[in-house]
Amino acid sequence: MLGLMQDWPLVCSKLIDHAALNFPNREFVTRSVEGDITRVNYAQLRARSLQLAKRLDQSGVKMGDRIATLAWNTSRHVEAWFGIMGVGAIYHTVNPRLFPEQIAWIINHAEDRMIFVDLTFVPLVEAIWDKLNTVEKVVVLTDDAHMPATDLPAVAYESFIAAADSDFRWLELDENAAAGLCYTSGTTGNPKGVLYSHRSNILHAMTGCLPDMMGLGSRDRILPVVPMFHANGWALPFVAALNGSGMVLPGARMDGEAIWELLDSEKVTFTAAVPTVWLMLLQYLEKSGKELLHLERVLIGGAACPRTIMEAFENKYGVHVMHAWGMTEMSPLGTICSIKPELAHLEGDARLDLQEKQGHAPFGVEMKITDDEGNRQPWDGKTYGKLMVRGPAITKSYFKGEGGNPLDDEGYFDTGDVAHIDEYGYMQITDRSKDVIKSGGEWISSIELENLAVGHPQVAEAAVIGIHHPKWDERPLLVIVPKQGEEIAKDSIFSFMEGKIAKWWMPDDVVFVEELPHTATGKIKKTALREQFREYELPTV
Amino acid sequence: MLGLMQDWPLVCSKLIDHAALNFPNREFVTRSVEGDITRVNYAQLRARSLQLAKRLDQSGVKMGDRIATLAWNTSRHVEAWFGIMGVGAIYHTVNPRLFPEQIAWIINHAEDRMIFVDLTFVPLVEAIWDKLNTVEKVVVLTDDAHMPATDLPAVAYESFIAAADSDFRWLELDENAAAGLCYTSGTTGNPKGVLYSHRSNILHAMTGCLPDMMGLGSRDRILPVVPMFHANGWALPFVAALNGSGMVLPGARMDGEAIWELLDSEKVTFTAAVPTVWLMLLQYLEKSGKELLHLERVLIGGAACPRTIMEAFENKYGVHVMHAWGMTEMSPLGTICSIKPELAHLEGDARLDLQEKQGHAPFGVEMKITDDEGNRQPWDGKTYGKLMVRGPAITKSYFKGEGGNPLDDEGYFDTGDVAHIDEYGYMQITDRSKDVIKSGGEWISSIELENLAVGHPQVAEAAVIGIHHPKWDERPLLVIVPKQGEEIAKDSIFSFMEGKIAKWWMPDDVVFVEELPHTATGKIKKTALREQFREYELPTV
Repeated sequence: MLGLMQDWPLVCSKLIDHAALNFPNREFVTRSVEGDITRVNYAQLRARSLQLAKRLDQSGVKMGDRIATLAWNTSRHVEAWFGIMGVGAIYHTVNPRLFPEQIAWIINHAEDRMIFVDLTFVPLVEAIWDKLNTVEKVVVLTDDAHMPATDLPAVAYESFIAAADSDFRWLELDENAAAGLCYTSGTTGNPKGVLYSHRSNILHAMTGCLPDMMGLGSRDRILPVVPMFHANGWALPFVAALNGSGMVLPGARMDGEAIWELLDSEKVTFTAAVPTVWLMLLQYLEKSGKELLHLERVLIGGAACPRTIMEAFENKYGVHVMHAWGMTEMSPLGTICSIKPELAHLEGDARLDLQEKQGHAPFGVEMKITDDEGNRQPWDGKTYGKLMVRGPAITKSYFKGEGGNPLDDEGYFDTGDVAHIDEYGYMQITDRSKDVIKSGGEWISSIELENLAVGHPQVAEAAVIGIHHPKWDERPLLVIVPKQGEEIAKDSIFSFMEGKIAKWWMPDDVVFVEELPHTATGKIKKTALREQFREYELPTV
Repeated sequence: MLGLMQDWPLVCSKLIDHAALNFPNREFVTRSVEGDITRVNYAQLRARSLQLAKRLDQSGVKMGDRIATLAWNTSRHVEAWFGIMGVGAIYHTVNPRLFPEQIAWIINHAEDRMIFVDLTFVPLVEAIWDKLNTVEKVVVLTDDAHMPATDLPAVAYESFIAAADSDFRWLELDENAAAGLCYTSGTTGNPKGVLYSHRSNILHAMTGCLPDMMGLGSRDRILPVVPMFHANGWALPFVAALNGSGMVLPGARMDGEAIWELLDSEKVTFTAAVPTVWLMLLQYLEKSGKELLHLERVLIGGAACPRTIMEAFENKYGVHVMHAWGMTEMSPLGTICSIKPELAHLEGDARLDLQEKQGHAPFGVEMKITDDEGNRQPWDGKTYGKLMVRGPAITKSYFKGEGGNPLDDEGYFDTGDVAHIDEYGYMQITDRSKDVIKSGGEWISSIELENLAVGHPQVAEAAVIGIHHPKWDERPLLVIVPKQGEEIAKDSIFSFMEGKIAKWWMPDDVVFVEELPHTATGKIKKTALREQFREYELPTV
């Protein structure tokens, strides 16, 4: 027997409809890529999204088509998401920090029909244009006045949408229809696409607003420094529309001064980014003597947050730090370290000890830790195991089936992280089983670097591990076994790799060893290698 | 193209699983019907619900079967909900305040197979037992020691579940499966059953927790005075499990002193009930000189809240009042009057003026106001119209199709209320188009009373309208046109009606008139009649 409640699919157009009806005048403030501060309210943003949807429909964009965005956090980028979803197409956020070859590979794999691109990235698109197989049109997120000269089949966004009005109805969609696509740099092989649905975006946003999660409401003014090309911008554009929160978008400028200016002038209450960004902000505050008068809470995720950052926010600037953990495959929020009432009495170091943990899971994220045989481990705050997760906004498989089935028998996804969980449900990452390095919140694939290094004619074997770095969290160290009798110069390795990877993927150092530790099956034993280089200090540049 | 997120149905067992895993030691405190204060934590409550589910499964209860509850707010009642849903059956909350004939009618209409009943209501079940057609077993929510002597096929709850252990798996269900059933006293004809689904219960609970709605989290200790037999207890049992909030349950005692004792001793932060309850509490506080030291917020709904109650809570006791509106057909939350940031500057009378409105709608509740032709009216805070609603936790039709299709062409449900909505989205009820009276948060059907009254041999025509009452919000006034030449004594009317309706349905007064106002089609014009008796004062008893 089925219930007799209304059929009301969880589709993302309802988010912007809700905000425009109930909070028409609430604003999105953007530091535009062109330079000015621009303002648009929810009513206008919805109307412009409808215009875009109508224009895409006129342009022959069909349900399920992919449209790439290579863009900063701006209100136009948010409009693009809602407009693209509004015709049933899929916003595909592309990370512009990847190596151009990878970007081209990803766009071809996604079979994107259009690219929405910020002025910043027009040269990037020009550079890879010859390699793109499916892109028909480039929409530059600007107006005619700022349009650059280009040979691309390009149009300015403002002219593009001006050719349609907002008299359009969102396409009616199944809530399980695909809404967004985001590739994650895989540990092995090619990047893999995570395909979000309308349902997962909405359930994830609802979860994200809960008082024990981000606790965001209409009174908040949210500044997502985390780019929208990182896993849905941590869902903040959806969360904002769901609640009618104000939004402040930093565009292309994410240095300490630029962020502080927006935090201060726009009276931001909540902001979110990786630790590296906060390090820059705190350095700016220290240098300038500025304060954070309006900011109440900062969400820090994407990499483990150093205690010094937490201490500075909490004790010096009176901003509450919420440590968080998630991943692209989780939409991305997994856990947030809000303080449960049993632990509300903690102060000083004991409180910071708690805040160093990545936090507890909300309804909609089921966690377990298992040993190598898949047996559940106890939640005692000591016993660690593979961190596995299940929920409605977590990947069940990758786009086009890449990488096969990533779920275990119980339907849990292997996060590739190793963690323990305490009796209160607080999870702490202790290690990583997946072979990647996280630098400034971005993944670097160890295996891609190794494959590249062994291509050098004098290299017998190569391994890459992450070394702790005070600013970037981790940086890659390349460990090489030379071929018998060979003596290799470091520079020879660096120049061999240069131009074949993004600059920021380049290992910070190369060391030469006689042999690498191996497992019984002949794989490199990364845990032993990391142990061996635990005290290693990267050269300061 | 469908998204590639996990299939994770929104079923209610996941709520209690989440709470038991992440908040195992958080407590449910109950003033038991037997008298003692009892405590059970989420881990225990889940284990007991599993025991019950297993026991029901052993007893042959099947998916879709209805199980009635006639019970106060206790942890056993909460366990019963989760246990019943856990085998795919449907908890059917029956309002014990209805007239016994109505209760029997409802139980027969629902075809309930079992009744879970508090000690208080065993005599009620005994009285109607001969009329019940489908009930096989009565489970009394107590232990053997407190079991009353009865001829019913009854068993004590504790013995019933003791016959099973908790080694059971919740039945796997479609999220659209029916979860709960609650009848609403119709405006015409028989009561109609609202059939909630697992999905609607969960989406509604998620919405209810949002910071702009009830804003409930793990640190809250919730005391629902509103009975669980009123529209899911305003979703508070689900909301609590979703967040791991503590719960304090008042059992059978809802007088001012009993409620105050729990608020105080259990450090309750949030409570919810109809205005009548708060009137009693405030009278108790006034008389005793007690204070509300821990309570932060009170949700007041079920009837328009008098300003004096708001003033007392806000100004005298420092408790924030959240006016709310909803209905059984809405699971029930429709709007809550939280303060939007644009209006946060309001103080004193201006703030109370705002709080007198029923509030704004969250994501998941779409409102419109329309004229009689169905045209949308502007949101200007003046123009009123029929209040229509749409959303995933709103009724699309009634159990067994009673009353036909209650939705308009756009899928909106007619609430039967008349309201205006202002530019900020704040809705205020101004009148009622449905022909009912709301007394102490419970519906009284005008039409049933009228049909009864015209059965009196000297009555030609009868109309019942609600008259404002300081304690009960409204009380019924019976207006009678005697048959030609007849002179009727009031007592003759009262004694004619006595025993045919619940005591609290009895009109507070009877007045005799020569004629009633009628519409062109011959219906009684209630608006004109209410206008005519606007200044009428009910006799004080």
